[in-house]
Amino acid sequence: MSTEADPRVLLVRVPMALRWRDLDAFDHVNNANFLTFLEEARVRWFRGMAEAWVDETRMPLLAAVQINYRRPIAYPAEIAVELYADRVGNTSVTIGHRIVGTDAANADVLYADGHSVIVWIDRESGRPAPLPNAVRAAAEQP
Amino acid sequence: MSTEADPRVLLVRVPMALRWRDLDAFDHVNNANFLTFLEEARVRWFRGMAEAWVDETRMPLLAAVQINYRRPIAYPAEIAVELYADRVGNTSVTIGHRIVGTDAANADVLYADGHSVIVWIDRESGRPAPLPNAVRAAAEQP
Amino acid sequence: MSTEADPRVLLVRVPMALRWRDLDAFDHVNNANFLTFLEEARVRWFRGMAEAWVDETRMPLLAAVQINYRRPIAYPAEIAVELYADRVGNTSVTIGHRIVGTDAANADVLYADGHSVIVWIDRESGRPAPLPNAVRAAAEQP
Amino acid sequence: MSTEADPRVLLVRVPMALRWRDLDAFDHVNNANFLTFLEEARVRWFRGMAEAWVDETRMPLLAAVQINYRRPIAYPAEIAVELYADRVGNTSVTIGHRIVGTDAANADVLYADGHSVIVWIDRESGRPAPLPNAVRAAAEQP
Repeated sequence: MSTEADPRVLLVRVPMALRWRDLDAFDHVNNANFLTFLEEARVRWFRGMAEAWVDETRMPLLAAVQINYRRPIAYPAEIAVELYADRVGNTSVTIGHRIVGTDAANADVLYADGHSVIVWIDRESGRPAPLPNAVRAAAEQP
Repeated sequence: MSTEADPRVLLVRVPMALRWRDLDAFDHVNNANFLTFLEEARVRWFRGMAEAWVDETRMPLLAAVQINYRRPIAYPAEIAVELYADRVGNTSVTIGHRIVGTDAANADVLYADGHSVIVWIDRESGRPAPLPNAVRAAAEQP
Repeated sequence: MSTEADPRVLLVRVPMALRWRDLDAFDHVNNANFLTFLEEARVRWFRGMAEAWVDETRMPLLAAVQINYRRPIAYPAEIAVELYADRVGNTSVTIGHRIVGTDAANADVLYADGHSVIVWIDRESGRPAPLPNAVRAAAEQP
Repeated sequence: MSTEADPRVLLVRVPMALRWRDLDAFDHVNNANFLTFLEEARVRWFRGMAEAWVDETRMPLLAAVQINYRRPIAYPAEIAVELYADRVGNTSVTIGHRIVGTDAANADVLYADGHSVIVWIDRESGRPAPLPNAVRAAAEQP
């Protein structure tokens, strides 16, 4: 469960500030909040691009998520989300994700991994739209 | 994308009351909230059992989730979560899930599907523990 | 702390389905989720009106909230939110709120009370706008 | 609405990392999330104390909140929560709060203010318990 070198290309590594409210009644970060962390990392990745990641005609939607919960996250803890380009398609991108520990005591901990499929859609028709150039460029050569 | 007959055994079908706050800035139910709906359906399934689903020695943890977002959920909408027993193991159970529309206008809509792996763990050691009998019984013959 | 007769006019009484995720690490419904319950009750009250409660020119915003947490809410529990018209102004309405128990065991329990000030604003200018007629009518004679 | 000098004693100033999910369908940080920010600031203030802020016998509960929403918070934005000691009682403390902008463009913006009443309770009896010494000391001379 250590954070060994990942052969894939890292797109972005986003430190995520935990909140006490991320905990649920089991005193661990709730499973749904992991998806919020992934979403936040994606949004920050998008926002770092030269082009707008969402505009009046297109927006990204999550098409699928697979996530393995490797270890519970306590509060407080220092964590980061890593995003990797697993596959770049015409209208979608598959992004590998890892949630890892970054404080001294948990620097080698892998809390979760898996991947997400993001598809761009035309806001009007609701149908898949071509990946924005900036996203394609960023995913192919971060 | 219609809700055709599913060959698996249905464990439970839980109507879920949407909240306006389930929406995000894209005006659709946020992706992470789908996991909250699945969690709520599991908890209600557990609570319907004769035995306690969580006690001082054991508790269930989500080990993995796979979810396909088939269609955005607007607000208001009437939805339900269906849980299916995909596989019953010694210390874990794999639960198929479907989120479906239940109002007249969306009675055939499949919003999401996929599966979750739930593992029981010993609270003290953090290691896998045998499935509670009630869970095994409910998953094998609901 | 019993739910004695309230002299004010009741606008709406909205049953609220608790979710396990409403709990926080103290095993009680989190304080912020009370505001989500109040919001949901307001939205349902608005939606029951003849006119649109939000359109392209105007939307309601919460200007202030005061809330007294009288008793922790456990899960599961059956609760309802009651809204009262405390004051109807030109561009705002002050709504009294009560969160009460509705299951047999807690039918007399007052979980929280207080009031909210809702102001209508012009989306473009961000400045206060006249109360929609439907809101005024509903608040004055529900 | 500028962040003029506050005559009260500042207990702590906690930068708060916004998440895209803090937005609601109106594209502003949701009103309930303001309470989550206040809670997070309190927890960090407590955690900075020499003594445990929560133990097996006592825990803090929010007894009341008053909050004025002065301006909507967009995403992204840099904000901080300021806590002030308004009143220190035997079993409770009244904490003034301000949510302010900290990025260059919004350095003078007051997003929200108000106060919270925190009471310590005995976990077993559910009744008010004396303020922990560390909390009293911190509130009286931060």
